[in-house]
Amino acid sequence: MQIIHTIAELRAWRKTVSSVAFVPTMGNLHEGHLALIEQAKKEENHVVVSIFVNRLQFGQGEDFEQYPRTLQQDADKLRHAGVAVLFAPDERELYPNVAQNYHVEPPHLQNELCGAFRPHHFRGVATVVCKLFNIVQADTACFGKKDYQQLAIIQGMVDDLNVPIRIVPVDTGRAADGLALSSRNQYLNADERAEAPRLYQQLQWIGTQVAAGNHHYAALENAAKSTLSAHGWTVDYVEIREAGSLNVARLGDKNLVVLAAARLGKTRLIDNLEIQAA
Amino acid sequence: MQIIHTIAELRAWRKTVSSVAFVPTMGNLHEGHLALIEQAKKEENHVVVSIFVNRLQFGQGEDFEQYPRTLQQDADKLRHAGVAVLFAPDERELYPNVAQNYHVEPPHLQNELCGAFRPHHFRGVATVVCKLFNIVQADTACFGKKDYQQLAIIQGMVDDLNVPIRIVPVDTGRAADGLALSSRNQYLNADERAEAPRLYQQLQWIGTQVAAGNHHYAALENAAKSTLSAHGWTVDYVEIREAGSLNVARLGDKNLVVLAAARLGKTRLIDNLEIQAA
Repeated sequence: MQIIHTIAELRAWRKTVSSVAFVPTMGNLHEGHLALIEQAKKEENHVVVSIFVNRLQFGQGEDFEQYPRTLQQDADKLRHAGVAVLFAPDERELYPNVAQNYHVEPPHLQNELCGAFRPHHFRGVATVVCKLFNIVQADTACFGKKDYQQLAIIQGMVDDLNVPIRIVPVDTGRAADGLALSSRNQYLNADERAEAPRLYQQLQWIGTQVAAGNHHYAALENAAKSTLSAHGWTVDYVEIREAGSLNVARLGDKNLVVLAAARLGKTRLIDNLEIQAA
Repeated sequence: MQIIHTIAELRAWRKTVSSVAFVPTMGNLHEGHLALIEQAKKEENHVVVSIFVNRLQFGQGEDFEQYPRTLQQDADKLRHAGVAVLFAPDERELYPNVAQNYHVEPPHLQNELCGAFRPHHFRGVATVVCKLFNIVQADTACFGKKDYQQLAIIQGMVDDLNVPIRIVPVDTGRAADGLALSSRNQYLNADERAEAPRLYQQLQWIGTQVAAGNHHYAALENAAKSTLSAHGWTVDYVEIREAGSLNVARLGDKNLVVLAAARLGKTRLIDNLEIQAA
């Protein structure tokens, strides 16, 4: 595996290979990332993984400074996973002027769901992913459904700006008790870790209700929020939306997704589940 | 020359050729465009010209509906000029959802100079050019210095979003009397056409003054505006800026550009001239 730190070197390497599948990450790799890489290996001849903790998508008071940076361990995992290139630029390489002057501006969806709690987050995600796509020039990119809203925004950007890349969504990796794999799980203490699977359980409960014909979406959302609050969570949102587009769910929509974000102590967890209306 | 109307066909063609130089236009081609194409032929093996009157960059009350559409004559000129492909998508091809949801958002420069008089114009330009770059995947694109602010914004977008393309600026084509070539010149009646070269003459006068050591930029700008107003122009702006970046010119900057926009009757003309401080 080659470790490449500069855009110029990556572009030179890119000219030497036929097809590339790309997995952008912020590092601190876990099984969820490795599942993305396994999918990527199936899609194209060579896999590029980027590791870049993107300041642009962190808000004030968020965990940019303490976000775990574990490049050496990450590189070992990627080498073992059969990745061709680890692209690990530093901040000056991607943001040479410090300020990013041109942004990819997503539509109002960027201010809904997680976006309502993280101003500019999805603009920062869309912008850095646009930059990375332009640098890597991959044929395919794999994104986890764990970050469902991110996936919807990346797919929207690709469609709307005609970006020449195919987006492959990959199912969320989960611990045995259902907790979605996330770099932020390591912030949880033992009690919080024991409580954490309740988030996914509430999504499953809503899925069962909706599949059984319950169309009182607001009541279902509120019930899940109450249950979580009663168990010590601070809930940002629980929402039932149209799958894929993330438009507000209307009666008659069959393919839905229920998304949630809630905090346990200082740790903010997100999860979602695609569900079917009866 | 092939005339291609769909993105899918253009992408299929693109795979069959090595290097491409791209000239995006809104059609109604004149000698200025042909100079861009001549430059493009020198840059790469194949030239693609797009013709697309981009609704997104026209404001309310601007001339989108009456913008001249002359595809047949344009195609004849391009064939004669040795262009490989004319890409002429219709609106539904580039804007299938009618609304464009994701935009390339330029920095504050988009609201200065021409941008102060044309809200959202440069966002619309940057967005459609980003789309066209993603569709054509050219190695090089040629832009005229006539639209100097547009060129600065495209170059800024390419740099800041790491777009894999090289931008080649091409000098402004001019009539024998100095008037910059523009599709909008045909809107001028005979009296206006006779008056029109004064715009460039004022830029040249400022250039002479600045080269001779006159650093009273605001006074020079105002003098040019007064002269134009006295001859029936409605002046939007005359401004001396730093060349390339279009930052506000500071004392000590050597490489400058003076830009102007002014209306004769209903026709808005723009022009600029790169000048050197003493």
